[in-house]
Amino acid sequence: MKKWLKRIGLVLALPLALLLAALIFVGFKYAAYSQDEDETHLAAKQAYLASITASAPARPREGRPNIIVLYYDDLGFGDFGFTGSQAIATPNIDALAARGTVMTQFHSSANVCSPARAALLTGRLPPRAGVPTVVFPTGSVMSGVANIVPGYNVRIPAEEITLADVLGADGYRTGMIGKWHIGDVSPSLPNDMGFASFYGARYSNDMTPFAIYRDNEIALAAPVDQTNMDALYTAEAVRFIGDAAKGDAPFFLYFAHNFPHEPLFAAKDNVGRSNAGLYGDVVEGLDDGVGEIIAALEAAGELENTIIVLSSDNGPWFQGSPGLNRGRKGQTFEGGMRVPFIISWPDGLTGGRELPAAAMMTDLFPTLLDWLALPLPQDRAIDGRGMNALLAGEAEALDGFLYYYAGDRLMAVSDGRYKYHDRQGIAYVVSNSGLPSSFDHGPWLFDLARDPDESYDVALRYPELAARLKTELERKRAEDVANLRGWREPPAQGEKS
Amino acid sequence: MKKWLKRIGLVLALPLALLLAALIFVGFKYAAYSQDEDETHLAAKQAYLASITASAPARPREGRPNIIVLYYDDLGFGDFGFTGSQAIATPNIDALAARGTVMTQFHSSANVCSPARAALLTGRLPPRAGVPTVVFPTGSVMSGVANIVPGYNVRIPAEEITLADVLGADGYRTGMIGKWHIGDVSPSLPNDMGFASFYGARYSNDMTPFAIYRDNEIALAAPVDQTNMDALYTAEAVRFIGDAAKGDAPFFLYFAHNFPHEPLFAAKDNVGRSNAGLYGDVVEGLDDGVGEIIAALEAAGELENTIIVLSSDNGPWFQGSPGLNRGRKGQTFEGGMRVPFIISWPDGLTGGRELPAAAMMTDLFPTLLDWLALPLPQDRAIDGRGMNALLAGEAEALDGFLYYYAGDRLMAVSDGRYKYHDRQGIAYVVSNSGLPSSFDHGPWLFDLARDPDESYDVALRYPELAARLKTELERKRAEDVANLRGWREPPAQGEKS
Repeated sequence: MKKWLKRIGLVLALPLALLLAALIFVGFKYAAYSQDEDETHLAAKQAYLASITASAPARPREGRPNIIVLYYDDLGFGDFGFTGSQAIATPNIDALAARGTVMTQFHSSANVCSPARAALLTGRLPPRAGVPTVVFPTGSVMSGVANIVPGYNVRIPAEEITLADVLGADGYRTGMIGKWHIGDVSPSLPNDMGFASFYGARYSNDMTPFAIYRDNEIALAAPVDQTNMDALYTAEAVRFIGDAAKGDAPFFLYFAHNFPHEPLFAAKDNVGRSNAGLYGDVVEGLDDGVGEIIAALEAAGELENTIIVLSSDNGPWFQGSPGLNRGRKGQTFEGGMRVPFIISWPDGLTGGRELPAAAMMTDLFPTLLDWLALPLPQDRAIDGRGMNALLAGEAEALDGFLYYYAGDRLMAVSDGRYKYHDRQGIAYVVSNSGLPSSFDHGPWLFDLARDPDESYDVALRYPELAARLKTELERKRAEDVANLRGWREPPAQGEKS
Repeated sequence: MKKWLKRIGLVLALPLALLLAALIFVGFKYAAYSQDEDETHLAAKQAYLASITASAPARPREGRPNIIVLYYDDLGFGDFGFTGSQAIATPNIDALAARGTVMTQFHSSANVCSPARAALLTGRLPPRAGVPTVVFPTGSVMSGVANIVPGYNVRIPAEEITLADVLGADGYRTGMIGKWHIGDVSPSLPNDMGFASFYGARYSNDMTPFAIYRDNEIALAAPVDQTNMDALYTAEAVRFIGDAAKGDAPFFLYFAHNFPHEPLFAAKDNVGRSNAGLYGDVVEGLDDGVGEIIAALEAAGELENTIIVLSSDNGPWFQGSPGLNRGRKGQTFEGGMRVPFIISWPDGLTGGRELPAAAMMTDLFPTLLDWLALPLPQDRAIDGRGMNALLAGEAEALDGFLYYYAGDRLMAVSDGRYKYHDRQGIAYVVSNSGLPSSFDHGPWLFDLARDPDESYDVALRYPELAARLKTELERKRAEDVANLRGWREPPAQGEKS
């Protein structure tokens, strides 16, 4: 009997020790995030935006392109026709891909929803944007668990500067439709963060209470009948485009769909139409929506002068195909972060191209600002790299590296072909609410050209490459420790434009 | 402060409750396995084997084929040239595949090492063979943890009947080389379970102490220098074939390599030769070994009359490519259980074919016995289905289903094209020492023809199919509950041959 007790004690001791270690770890980990506003950088943000507004008349208004970002939730790399699906038909998206530019090695900036969105909107990697991991609804159990450590971030800090802030300051009509998910309370709501109008959900469609808001008012009370959601969102997008086209200002529409994140609901008429079950039915419905949006742009005479970006926030979750990539949502393998990417702008970009250059969603922010001759903020690091020369056909690759974060822990660095992936241990599990694939293995050097599914460590064969990428990973980690949010000393002469 | 304590309490309560539930669950789960010998079925085994020996002279001795099973450890579906690798060159194995018959939808009977091996040797699914999960070295911490519940099985029961038992009784010279891993103590060692000779390891190469045995004596003391292991094993196989070919009896060689299970060690001259790192170097070394074995058979004039089977015990672990399949070792997705499979027998089978029929490693046992006109045991269920008509080109598919176990829990059933995968919950995590991919999701119906990477649930579209496969899963589970080991009433007239 005593032997038995000793055995049980041993079995219990390990998980308990791990649990305590994890709690302590989380405590240290997130202590760097303060939920108080940073008055200094809030003031810098306001000054920056004011300078853009003040200088707006000096920039050419004629032909200033509209911008639409179509963003899908948990949609896998292999879920579109143009990325290889045999089971889902997406003729409208495939046509957009054929007319536009496809980037075949494009990556989200995170492996889960919230940080990916913060990075898209700010051009900053998730820890710098203050949203290292998934944001849970205020008052939820998960929010309580996450919030056990003071300073754990539960919303995007007000001092962050979004694309909508910048474009709005430049005179764009800004609107958001769909899933926000980087804060469900002020001052982190869409209308606080640069969007003049908002119609959608404050977080994922599996979180509760799930309501649809128009600006800060509930338009559809929880629980929303999600079978209508796609139709409502698309109708709203078509209406926004039609209304905006009547005005003098160009528009920016950030349409971040809640689907195909689980739970899945297809419109009644779409159930059973695909060869990929309800997931495929939902994606085929999303493709219809793209068709309607394109038609609305054509009807308004705005298609030629509209930049359309289409992508996903991370790899597929329980359903959805990662294509040939290893892993899924929540992982720093390619299957967690490599996403489909189309950029189309008939007036400004040659279409019908596939570019193999590696890039990341943070790169969109400086690319758009460069095209619009807008200055970058100077008081903070912007991680994104302008893709302008690349997209103009004047460069073959971007400088620098891709950074793969799991929470605020940098797990991998890639130069586009070779990817150094650090050892995965308990840190990986704690950093992710997602799906751990392995414990305490690696580090690995993957040759993504010969081994797209990251199955073979080639570090022994290319030790200098492995060392170079490891050095970069350690440099970046040290930079994060020294200055997590990437604040810069303000220039002595005030804001530079 | 009180609020804080309450929060910490809440955070601790959930993992603790889960831990206790898991312990209780494990307790009930494995209570059905007794480590005591089953005297009734041990006697039936002995009577069965005696009847085979007694009737051996009545069977034709001339032209009785030799049998070699080449079995690799954690080798992934996509790791050979003939299964699509772009990074690993396996010319000898590819040539064997080209000369023999490749089964493209072949599955191991388990997603981890030990149960896969028990199933191969007995023709019985892992719970019936008494080895539901990984066997840990006697005296190890993991063995202690697993053994906390009396009756948890830590070795194959002596009453199980192996291929070596049957072939040895029929007069074959039986030998085993490599990794045993279904019990490291008598009466469950290779020499206890039908093999006249053994050279190899009692378990995986990441377990300690790792020694190489010749029969029941240590030949190489732990820790073995694993860089030599491949050469030692291959030389032993070549020697076995040469010696056996000189004798009058046909031979059965079960060569279950320890590689490419981690840790990986390539022969010194092989380091850096592949484009897939050390993993690829090791696999290319294994391919060399196949070349040597084929050459030894040719030199002995035995190639034409030797059945060679080549496969893997489960999907790849941390490295190794699952090809297009979802998941890896430890999972009941295809990536955990779909394996490369070649069967070659120049004298008996038309070569140069690829068969798409779904099959499982349990099917090998009755197939071989049928070719040799040997009776099956009558006191126990044999899960395997003879592939003889299929391999003779007289049938296109096997009757029945594929069963995917995680530990002793049946998780999925497939009819070859459609696969019903039950919900994955805590049971999945407890059943596997491996890698959980998701929690509490499913059930799913996958269409493996249109959706080989199991990304889309099509149950809504094919409800009758889903219901039929679910019914089969529930029937089989009930059968397991009623008679886990599949014992049958002995025939009234005694053993039937």
